[in-house]
Amino acid sequence: MNTTHYLHLVQAAIDEVNASFPQQPAGLYEPLRYTMKLGGKRMRPLLTLMGAGLFTDKVEPAIPAAMGVELFHNFTLLHDDIMDNAPLRRGMQTVHEKWDVNTAILSGDVMYTQAFRYITKSPAAALADVLDMFLRTAAEVCEGQQYDMDFERQSKVTIEEYLRMIELKTAVLAGASLSIGALCVGAPQSEARKLYDFGRLFGIAFQLQDDILDVYGDPKTFGKQVGGDILANKKTFLLLSALQRANGLQREELLNWLQAPASAGTEKVEAVTAIFNQLGIRDLARECMNEHYHKAIDALHHTEADALRKAELRAFTDALMVREV
Amino acid sequence: MNTTHYLHLVQAAIDEVNASFPQQPAGLYEPLRYTMKLGGKRMRPLLTLMGAGLFTDKVEPAIPAAMGVELFHNFTLLHDDIMDNAPLRRGMQTVHEKWDVNTAILSGDVMYTQAFRYITKSPAAALADVLDMFLRTAAEVCEGQQYDMDFERQSKVTIEEYLRMIELKTAVLAGASLSIGALCVGAPQSEARKLYDFGRLFGIAFQLQDDILDVYGDPKTFGKQVGGDILANKKTFLLLSALQRANGLQREELLNWLQAPASAGTEKVEAVTAIFNQLGIRDLARECMNEHYHKAIDALHHTEADALRKAELRAFTDALMVREV
Repeated sequence: MNTTHYLHLVQAAIDEVNASFPQQPAGLYEPLRYTMKLGGKRMRPLLTLMGAGLFTDKVEPAIPAAMGVELFHNFTLLHDDIMDNAPLRRGMQTVHEKWDVNTAILSGDVMYTQAFRYITKSPAAALADVLDMFLRTAAEVCEGQQYDMDFERQSKVTIEEYLRMIELKTAVLAGASLSIGALCVGAPQSEARKLYDFGRLFGIAFQLQDDILDVYGDPKTFGKQVGGDILANKKTFLLLSALQRANGLQREELLNWLQAPASAGTEKVEAVTAIFNQLGIRDLARECMNEHYHKAIDALHHTEADALRKAELRAFTDALMVREV
Repeated sequence: MNTTHYLHLVQAAIDEVNASFPQQPAGLYEPLRYTMKLGGKRMRPLLTLMGAGLFTDKVEPAIPAAMGVELFHNFTLLHDDIMDNAPLRRGMQTVHEKWDVNTAILSGDVMYTQAFRYITKSPAAALADVLDMFLRTAAEVCEGQQYDMDFERQSKVTIEEYLRMIELKTAVLAGASLSIGALCVGAPQSEARKLYDFGRLFGIAFQLQDDILDVYGDPKTFGKQVGGDILANKKTFLLLSALQRANGLQREELLNWLQAPASAGTEKVEAVTAIFNQLGIRDLARECMNEHYHKAIDALHHTEADALRKAELRAFTDALMVREV
């Protein structure tokens, strides 16, 4: 089966999930439908079906879990957007903007409840392992978000700490999505573990790609404002590496720009990007990204799944690694 | 086994749960420990152990689920306190006041994750039924909170709508706590169902008691400010009944007081209470409370558990129905 087919399965399942939410109270459930319809790449439920698809053509037993991870991911976006005070998500108003903060909190909570519900619909034989993986991951995603917020207030963050943060906040869910899919169709724990590592390492590479695109993305195709991270003084891999590599003068210039208000706008983005360029930060980030992605591929090689099926999964993640949005 | 013994079991389990939370990130897990240590009556985990204790002396298999419902309840308090902008909980600063709103959101999320983890530690034979009961209840509690917030903005709320709201927001969790306890020690579904009804109806009576105490509680023993609901114009059973029963003049006076600012303080509380007294609202509320509690006792009578054990549970809920705090 190919990715397009999986995407159809995911889309149909999401429509069913949306239709299954109660109508009342509308203030609680309407934001769920709104959020689930906002779209996105559906990367995580696709990974779940692909994790299953490595071992069988009959991936249907993994569909509830695929919905569980997608609902969970969207729930975290809903609450993260409150915490980050983000006005837009995928070009549309965030829930706390369109409704209000209380709505976003409570709709998020019931969305998390729905995520649990779908996870528990996994096949009985796999349920204990699926629950264990899901719950561990859910706690780690919260931990990652906490570190992300902590780092905003911390004056010193190391590259290692940053990589651990994105691993928790973003990458472990990719790993969990894949391995849960495999578990749902009866793959052994040892295989699920390798897929988890593949997804986790891919997830880190994917987030580094995000950091790079935020600075070097094509404004025509990049979904968000190019330079958004720079304007927000976000301690990304790029900024942390630049601060580490800079000589005295460059460091001083960089720190000066960090003091500049967001209203400095394009000027700030251009100046900081220029320093990144002087220091070869883009290549450094790419190296780190490629290193993680190669380790990911290694883990995938070690699974005993059919080579052709692995190639399909690999094609999917390859495409995500050269994306421009 | 008596209530004191159950309370020891609950307290010891809570200490273990608190000790099991990771140390890092402290910003995420410290508020959990803080919240779980705030105390409270521990009514829900006690009900879980008592639900189990109706059928066996060995209630230990219900302990993880008891922790699950207590964690869940505390998670909802954490998020509700944000939504209600409450500065204090059990006489101590709420998490969003002591830390901040983002902390309260995220710590609540990880607390919910922990709640779910403990629920999944229920005995395998009961797990499917326990999960089903827990997840249905969790969604209903969110629905109840939504209706509660909706009612604040609604000009007209019927008594029936109000009773349904408190049933969802408060009462179903009491029912679920009891029935989950019974399920954990192998009680049949039919028995669990009756206990659910007992807990649910008791929960409605318990909340009506809360409404009454908020107006008529003894300021010396009542934990909160007497008249708090009146000052906040909260559409409780008492206010809604008064609006329904009032003649033209009384209604006008009541509506005038509803316009008065909270700074009207004692004067407002006394005036509204006087109208309640004229209309016999306290008796009306007590009647409605007793009616629900009697129906609850009826449901308990219909369970096939040992009469002595039922009497013990009954003594526990009786005590809660004549409480002054």
